[in-house]
Amino acid sequence: MYVGDVSSSYNVQHAPVGAFASFTLGSHHRRGGFASQVGRPGQSNLYIGYREGESDLCCLPYFEATHDPSTVPFGVTLERPKRPRRVFDDRDIRRELGWASDTIRAGRLTLTIFSPFGPIPDPRTAPAAEVALRSCPAVLARLELDNTGGTEPLTGFFALDAASLRDLESTSDGRLIGVAHGRRWGFASRPEPGVRAFQAFSIENAFDGSADRLFRLGKVGGLLVEVPPGARREVWIALGFHDAGVITTGIEARYAYTRHHRGLEEVLSFALDHREALLREAAQRDEELSRAPLSPPQKWLLAQATHGYFGSTQWLDTALEDGAPPAPLWNVNEGEYEMMNTFDLAIDHLFFELRYAPWAVRNVLDLYVDRYSYRDGVKRPGAPGELLPGGVSFTHDMGVSNHFSPPGYSSYERPNLDAACFSYMTYEQLTNWICCAGVYVARTGDEGFLARHRGLLAELLTSLLHRDAPEPDARGGVMALDSSRCGAGAEITTYDSLDHSLGRARSNLYLAGKSWASYVILAHLLERCGDAALAAEASAASRKAARAITSAFHEPSGYIPALLDGSCTSAIIPAIEGLLYPHAMGLLSSDAAEGEHGELLRVLRRHLQAVLKPGLCLFPEGGWKLSSSSDNSWMSKIALCQHIARALLKVEEPDAGRHDEAHVRWQIEGSGYWAFSDQMQRGVPVGSRYYPRGVTAILWLDEPSPAPGAKGR
Amino acid sequence: MYVGDVSSSYNVQHAPVGAFASFTLGSHHRRGGFASQVGRPGQSNLYIGYREGESDLCCLPYFEATHDPSTVPFGVTLERPKRPRRVFDDRDIRRELGWASDTIRAGRLTLTIFSPFGPIPDPRTAPAAEVALRSCPAVLARLELDNTGGTEPLTGFFALDAASLRDLESTSDGRLIGVAHGRRWGFASRPEPGVRAFQAFSIENAFDGSADRLFRLGKVGGLLVEVPPGARREVWIALGFHDAGVITTGIEARYAYTRHHRGLEEVLSFALDHREALLREAAQRDEELSRAPLSPPQKWLLAQATHGYFGSTQWLDTALEDGAPPAPLWNVNEGEYEMMNTFDLAIDHLFFELRYAPWAVRNVLDLYVDRYSYRDGVKRPGAPGELLPGGVSFTHDMGVSNHFSPPGYSSYERPNLDAACFSYMTYEQLTNWICCAGVYVARTGDEGFLARHRGLLAELLTSLLHRDAPEPDARGGVMALDSSRCGAGAEITTYDSLDHSLGRARSNLYLAGKSWASYVILAHLLERCGDAALAAEASAASRKAARAITSAFHEPSGYIPALLDGSCTSAIIPAIEGLLYPHAMGLLSSDAAEGEHGELLRVLRRHLQAVLKPGLCLFPEGGWKLSSSSDNSWMSKIALCQHIARALLKVEEPDAGRHDEAHVRWQIEGSGYWAFSDQMQRGVPVGSRYYPRGVTAILWLDEPSPAPGAKGR
Repeated sequence: MYVGDVSSSYNVQHAPVGAFASFTLGSHHRRGGFASQVGRPGQSNLYIGYREGESDLCCLPYFEATHDPSTVPFGVTLERPKRPRRVFDDRDIRRELGWASDTIRAGRLTLTIFSPFGPIPDPRTAPAAEVALRSCPAVLARLELDNTGGTEPLTGFFALDAASLRDLESTSDGRLIGVAHGRRWGFASRPEPGVRAFQAFSIENAFDGSADRLFRLGKVGGLLVEVPPGARREVWIALGFHDAGVITTGIEARYAYTRHHRGLEEVLSFALDHREALLREAAQRDEELSRAPLSPPQKWLLAQATHGYFGSTQWLDTALEDGAPPAPLWNVNEGEYEMMNTFDLAIDHLFFELRYAPWAVRNVLDLYVDRYSYRDGVKRPGAPGELLPGGVSFTHDMGVSNHFSPPGYSSYERPNLDAACFSYMTYEQLTNWICCAGVYVARTGDEGFLARHRGLLAELLTSLLHRDAPEPDARGGVMALDSSRCGAGAEITTYDSLDHSLGRARSNLYLAGKSWASYVILAHLLERCGDAALAAEASAASRKAARAITSAFHEPSGYIPALLDGSCTSAIIPAIEGLLYPHAMGLLSSDAAEGEHGELLRVLRRHLQAVLKPGLCLFPEGGWKLSSSSDNSWMSKIALCQHIARALLKVEEPDAGRHDEAHVRWQIEGSGYWAFSDQMQRGVPVGSRYYPRGVTAILWLDEPSPAPGAKGR
Repeated sequence: MYVGDVSSSYNVQHAPVGAFASFTLGSHHRRGGFASQVGRPGQSNLYIGYREGESDLCCLPYFEATHDPSTVPFGVTLERPKRPRRVFDDRDIRRELGWASDTIRAGRLTLTIFSPFGPIPDPRTAPAAEVALRSCPAVLARLELDNTGGTEPLTGFFALDAASLRDLESTSDGRLIGVAHGRRWGFASRPEPGVRAFQAFSIENAFDGSADRLFRLGKVGGLLVEVPPGARREVWIALGFHDAGVITTGIEARYAYTRHHRGLEEVLSFALDHREALLREAAQRDEELSRAPLSPPQKWLLAQATHGYFGSTQWLDTALEDGAPPAPLWNVNEGEYEMMNTFDLAIDHLFFELRYAPWAVRNVLDLYVDRYSYRDGVKRPGAPGELLPGGVSFTHDMGVSNHFSPPGYSSYERPNLDAACFSYMTYEQLTNWICCAGVYVARTGDEGFLARHRGLLAELLTSLLHRDAPEPDARGGVMALDSSRCGAGAEITTYDSLDHSLGRARSNLYLAGKSWASYVILAHLLERCGDAALAAEASAASRKAARAITSAFHEPSGYIPALLDGSCTSAIIPAIEGLLYPHAMGLLSSDAAEGEHGELLRVLRRHLQAVLKPGLCLFPEGGWKLSSSSDNSWMSKIALCQHIARALLKVEEPDAGRHDEAHVRWQIEGSGYWAFSDQMQRGVPVGSRYYPRGVTAILWLDEPSPAPGAKGR
């Protein structure tokens, strides 16, 4: 779909839904392939290509060159057959990334990998067959080989190296032709004439004379496909995963798919049997994105982000022992960090999940209430021993690397850190629950959820107010007190590795926007619950918050300083972030600038227009720079703020096409190996790699058509 | 037990019984630690040591030095606290390896790791409690810290780095203090004052100011132990594994222990609860070996080999679904190669297993009959299309890397290889089944086994005879025809990576000895079954075999050439190997040289005396060289032939102490990192590393006391 002048050398996470598993491929001269339960690409050399007659092997460049032409297993030196490899390079390869497909063309082969996605049924109510189809932990590949112009037989291959390789034919009564790594992943086609599996010490050895191509000690294995001269053929390959049994601790959970697919062979067979339905869905997604009024770079960014999101998802259910039905548990791991349902990511996944799995949003919000909420006191800056009344809030995450942390504690947050990475995010997570819940209720109309948490709403309001000031009269509308959990430290925001312009929580402009949003949303929800007095209190607080923001506008510079108290005067884009949630709930009037929140919107529009320029919040090459005083920028947040700028603030982007192209280059030239990465330092990822958060770009689909920024693209 | 002038830098596989799991430690400046389901050491840096007051960390050298003093997780650079490590070196460390213990002393710490072993109960008949104790997949460590001379508090640590680290306190209701890697392995002590678990980004960070030492994102974790000035204390640590569910394919099996220990926490608790019984057993083994009339190098070799053996064992049972009781399945993996129950290793494990798990011998022999036997034809050299009557034999192995190969096929054997590595070992595996069965029946008196396989005995005899010559008159007593499975190739022996002196099967002197042994044993077993005519036929064949060997004696050289047809005149030690099995069954008269097999014994005694000298079958530094024409030597086979030489042939070893010390140096200076290795090229392992086969040294315990070779040690 997008073939720009950028390289085709970048990894894509070809991921089924909810298996924390990807078949990752595309970065030249790097290893990849299958990996599950881990936040990084697989470690296999992938051998995909063909051989014409007896000539060289032509390979896609998805393996690392070995320096040693010989292998020494079993104390004997085996020369690798001296059969040169011809490796396709960027000039030979044409690649198109769709929303649910990835097509790679080189020489006589075309490889397409399909990772279909769509509505994820609520497992409590959906028919089992629907859950089985949607949760099936496999993607599909089509290998097309064109020998129409050939005069010799052509042999295609799709293979990789891995430990513990085994064949699948003998464990599937001959119904699958392929290889697997233990019981955990594998790939296979259906038996067809001219399609065989092999195992060998090297890809070259697969072409040795022996008729028996299955040398079970071989660490290289895959499929060989014969194509006669003059013919063209395609082979369908299922690429599947299976992680059985309880896979988590703290809360014991297993994959939802294990109730429907008992082993790898079943997964692969199911995927091949349901190929048409799966492909139909992939084609629908591709078509949707293709028709969307987005520029090609935008489409590419959303497609790449979507692949990364699903690679981090876990569709689990708890392993109840008492015969009760399993309870669903949705988790999104934090990419390379592997933290679980990190709340300041969950709020960014919100819009994507509301489109495809609203029940998952509810599931995560409920688990935050049930297990990952806590009550604290608060303290004034410089008063570590002080304990003023605090309130309820939520942890940063639910654990890490498949380990659910104990109730009330994240894996990330640590005491005694002065607004540095790993400190508490108590205030931010409080606003995150409120904003997520508000949008969830607005979009789904889930009155049961609202009723269940009605008592909590009042607590949330109190908690927000207590973090402003203990005395009502002293409250300024924004966060001014740190959680007692910080000990001698101070809270931070999700921008944890930025400087104080976005990192420090107190008086932070970004967080002030989310204070305002939280009060607006609470006012709405309390009203809806009939708690008029509390709703009015929340409403009053929202006006204070808005005033805190607007009154900090600094005319000489033309924008609002990053810390409202003026102690940091950086220019930051996420000043506007909080606007999103009331907007998404429809709480801002259609001509927003004229409504109740008109002044705030006008001031923030001025702010954004002022900061969105080179030297402040644009990198020289056009990328958005979230803070004028830091080279760190987060792509997910850029996408989100771009949407607010276009859809709500109607800010004319100076040179939208150029920005988007810069952002694509960050992902391809900077991140490349790491598929989608979020945290970019001058275009190179320094953290948050292999990351799910980029699906904030889904918001672009909600923009008026054509998007103002699409001009001239 | 053995403190020679060799280095203390060598790995030992601290392994429970039957879990294919080891906690490997001891090679300086290398990583190690926990690993299961894989034939190599773990990949953790181990941090074991102490800190006095606020001074340097004193560490055992069981980690790889990192070049980078800073870590960069989460896009933020964290300086490792600049606290130098003082690393103990060989001069500081005293190490004693016992049969079931390993004690390491350095500075103020003493670390002892106990891996108790003893009789392994037959799971079909033993009480569940016995099976639970014996199969518990854990070893125990004692960390002793001596601060009696100290004036400051001393903090001991026992820690490592690993992915997916988690604490155990929160998942054990506070009954365990320690850390784990997912659900698969971990270590813990019981809660005691002054003992705490930690997780941190580095071992240095564990000493940071914060009171909360459990930073769940940290990839380094372990135990901290406080010792006040003037005090001494010890802490007991269980090191355990848990691989749940079906772990194999082909045959679906799970670990026997999973029926008794449902998770890692249960394993660790059980081991700590049963500490006294486990230690008592370890002490018994240590005491037995200590009192045995072996030289210190012999004791060390047996102890090291025993640790390697258990690290490769798998005590499984098949995962029946139909409610039938699970059927036990014993497997020994082939070290780094991970092949399963490799038959030419099984025969070497035979004597060790008859001592501790005779039911496992039966189990393996039965599975070879039931699933891994096959019937072939045979062919004359140079006649690939020929198909003469063959008979029954057995595969080389049962699969690889937890994958049971299809019935009748090994993972190793390949057609069309001319007596090269990976060819068939049809004849050798035929003799292996016969020799194993003979010794098993003789030692256990298992008449049920004999009766069950009575019909097979006749088939085995026919198969042996058919591989000699089709016409009875043409038979020479030894193997002359290759299996039709070889295609255009020819059979090999277990010495697969040697030259033709030991590698080629036809007319091979080593294999001739096992032909003779097989006929002698079949004659005995058939007689016992009342099949007198067949017994006589076997007996006659044994005499032919003996004559084939003795008549090949070459007076000018003073020994028998490696290939009886004279096409290879190398001198080989394993000429005598076949003698072991009739000897172990008591079939050779007490003054063997005078009995029925007297001539064979006299000739082989002359042979051995002639070849056991420098330039032929001794390396310059004293190690045994199995073939005069190859630098490859197998330690397991040396141990076995040493036993035959001393216990049966009464050959005076030229300089026994020097040989044994050379063999220890092979293991420590050559193998070191790989714990016990078998295949040595001039003292350096080139294959067969991390290997179970060295337990042939158990035969040394059966030698007359004192062993003749023990003189002057």
